[in-house]
Amino acid sequence: MRLLQYVSLFIAITLVSFTSMQQKQKVVFFGDSITAAGVSPTGYITVLGSLMAQKGLKDQYELAGAGIGGNKVYDLYLRMEDDVLAKNPTTVVIWIGVNDVWHKKGGTGTDAPKFEQFYNAIIRKLQAKDIKVILCTPATIGEKTDFSNEQDGDLNKYANIVRAVAVKNNCPLVDLRKTFLAYNLANNPENKEKGILTADGVHLNDKGNALVADEMLKVLVK
Amino acid sequence: MRLLQYVSLFIAITLVSFTSMQQKQKVVFFGDSITAAGVSPTGYITVLGSLMAQKGLKDQYELAGAGIGGNKVYDLYLRMEDDVLAKNPTTVVIWIGVNDVWHKKGGTGTDAPKFEQFYNAIIRKLQAKDIKVILCTPATIGEKTDFSNEQDGDLNKYANIVRAVAVKNNCPLVDLRKTFLAYNLANNPENKEKGILTADGVHLNDKGNALVADEMLKVLVK
Amino acid sequence: MRLLQYVSLFIAITLVSFTSMQQKQKVVFFGDSITAAGVSPTGYITVLGSLMAQKGLKDQYELAGAGIGGNKVYDLYLRMEDDVLAKNPTTVVIWIGVNDVWHKKGGTGTDAPKFEQFYNAIIRKLQAKDIKVILCTPATIGEKTDFSNEQDGDLNKYANIVRAVAVKNNCPLVDLRKTFLAYNLANNPENKEKGILTADGVHLNDKGNALVADEMLKVLVK
Amino acid sequence: MRLLQYVSLFIAITLVSFTSMQQKQKVVFFGDSITAAGVSPTGYITVLGSLMAQKGLKDQYELAGAGIGGNKVYDLYLRMEDDVLAKNPTTVVIWIGVNDVWHKKGGTGTDAPKFEQFYNAIIRKLQAKDIKVILCTPATIGEKTDFSNEQDGDLNKYANIVRAVAVKNNCPLVDLRKTFLAYNLANNPENKEKGILTADGVHLNDKGNALVADEMLKVLVK
Repeated sequence: MRLLQYVSLFIAITLVSFTSMQQKQKVVFFGDSITAAGVSPTGYITVLGSLMAQKGLKDQYELAGAGIGGNKVYDLYLRMEDDVLAKNPTTVVIWIGVNDVWHKKGGTGTDAPKFEQFYNAIIRKLQAKDIKVILCTPATIGEKTDFSNEQDGDLNKYANIVRAVAVKNNCPLVDLRKTFLAYNLANNPENKEKGILTADGVHLNDKGNALVADEMLKVLVK
Repeated sequence: MRLLQYVSLFIAITLVSFTSMQQKQKVVFFGDSITAAGVSPTGYITVLGSLMAQKGLKDQYELAGAGIGGNKVYDLYLRMEDDVLAKNPTTVVIWIGVNDVWHKKGGTGTDAPKFEQFYNAIIRKLQAKDIKVILCTPATIGEKTDFSNEQDGDLNKYANIVRAVAVKNNCPLVDLRKTFLAYNLANNPENKEKGILTADGVHLNDKGNALVADEMLKVLVK
Repeated sequence: MRLLQYVSLFIAITLVSFTSMQQKQKVVFFGDSITAAGVSPTGYITVLGSLMAQKGLKDQYELAGAGIGGNKVYDLYLRMEDDVLAKNPTTVVIWIGVNDVWHKKGGTGTDAPKFEQFYNAIIRKLQAKDIKVILCTPATIGEKTDFSNEQDGDLNKYANIVRAVAVKNNCPLVDLRKTFLAYNLANNPENKEKGILTADGVHLNDKGNALVADEMLKVLVK
Repeated sequence: MRLLQYVSLFIAITLVSFTSMQQKQKVVFFGDSITAAGVSPTGYITVLGSLMAQKGLKDQYELAGAGIGGNKVYDLYLRMEDDVLAKNPTTVVIWIGVNDVWHKKGGTGTDAPKFEQFYNAIIRKLQAKDIKVILCTPATIGEKTDFSNEQDGDLNKYANIVRAVAVKNNCPLVDLRKTFLAYNLANNPENKEKGILTADGVHLNDKGNALVADEMLKVLVK
């Protein structure tokens, strides 16, 4: 009977290992300069990796950054094959939109209908390969809390588009726009333009990276 | 003889008061296409005139429009002498700012610091002639209530500038931006882009004209 | 002898089929609203078809339009598979760039480096399938001949990019910008803004369609 | 007879002095950052002063700068009284337009019809005080000679407006746009973007300052 017990244990362990191996998720973060900075020692992807390690999830997640400065939604579409699919991800977290709005000031932003069209096209290609796609709303261009950041209205419009695209494609959503607004309303009583969650109104400081990592964790690990 | 002196004084004071009471106020509304439309049969200036007549104030106020389509703050400065001072007003109501923000989309809006600089210069010239100057915040570019009208943030920024300019120059303020936002939050549950207080997101419909006339009345007649 | 006759016939038929198969070119015109209008009864693609028929080339060329209004270079990249590759073309004529420049006025044009990047990406994908790729420079936004059309400088810059991309990728070039400038210098002595080769400064009138068809013919049929 | 001689001499000297006093011209250069830099040790106004001194004209001309960085035509209108009229000039040289075009890229340029309207208003006010007004066309935004500087077309358009305004108001013209284009065609064979007459495509280097001083001299001293 002992042999049978050993065999049973061996089978059980093997099954668990195998299951765990199967569960190992490869997560690629796909975005712009904010995500490019995410893999730096203090970046949100690095922080998220530490949080996962603390929770003993280190073996279950492999995190990789795919952010390039200045990227808009159509840039993601262009480089999706080389920079994302080539990494064989199980999950892709898309965080894009700030430059699509911001660059309108210099004449080269993205029309709202085309923003939606390219976003849908990216998701369709990823989902066709059974990749789980998680979306994020663009967080902030200016941190003033009285709604007087120059592009607040347009950023809200594009955040609304991302929310609708998430629903339509059945994607989990990390609503960073909402999170950032709530955090700022509570923590920016002086109506500052930057310095609360960002260094310059757009790019994350340490608190911003911590907050984003927390929000990502909630959606990635359930 | 002392009695006669008192009587004389009384008569003098009465006359002065009477004259002052009777002194008709000439109010010039100085602005853009919204004000140009204000003198139409259903425009806010016409409606305001009717409200005054109903209150028996017809003899005390003379209202005149000085609005030109497409005007920005610096256009007001350019034509102030011909179109406002030449009318010898006692009061000037300035309502400008929508085009300074809106035209940025076509490349020819107004920088915020210059908006403030020209606004102050207009007020200074009018006040130097003992004209009472009343300011209005720009009301709306799009009526959506979830803060996703493309230029909401910038319009709020310019409304903030007008508020600060009013305080600095000791001018009464008709805060139409605030009034419109409050009215829309209460009356635009479907988050429509237009049709609540405006015909097209910017220019007033009948309800808009009525609301503006009410608000103007409150500040003009105290 | 009968066998020989059959064999001869078989060889003849095979040769004819083979030749015809080799000679028949499927040309897809890939572009924006100018190309969308190209398939109308007076459009440049229709005119080009007539010219080919007159030359007895009707059986050697099949022409198809793939133009969509408002398209920029990245829109072509997005729909290349559905709208071009699905048609199995032997030749693709790309004519894009006007909206990439024009839409800068409304805030949503295309950065020059990204224009080049997407253009190269399209060509690479087409050439990888052994499709012959022919490029066209963007022709005109305004027909004034004293170089005072508002976007002349930027359009020349993007035409330069297309010329360089053609050289780099070894593609034949239809230099419509050059052709249009030369035609206008000779035929627009009054420095008119439109009405020479275009109806509105951008979209072709009959003379414009004829001129473009001529230029396309020169490059397609050698 | 001696008395008569003395008297004659006295009269002659007086007349000469009087004439010379009458001839002394006060020239104010009214413009943007290019003119603000014009009074630096190597600036075009300083160079022009030296050229005049070399020609023995030092006593006949007094030169003063009134340039402020970032100024557009309406900024000149705003500060004309304080910065120009207060100096009691006999001649005003207006050189404006680069920012009116350039700032369109950031959303706050000047509409062409308003550019003309403000320009005319400035001239009218100066001429009403018997001040001689000399106009200059905006010189350059980028020095490439193949007409591919992004804003070449629009700058040519605004230069055309200045030329027409000069004719209409009977003002001498320093056609710097024309001068700069001709100089560059002859001296910029490599099609460089800057470094020929400017340091950065807009602001003058030593050669630019020398060329402008030469052109100004031709029109001021006849």
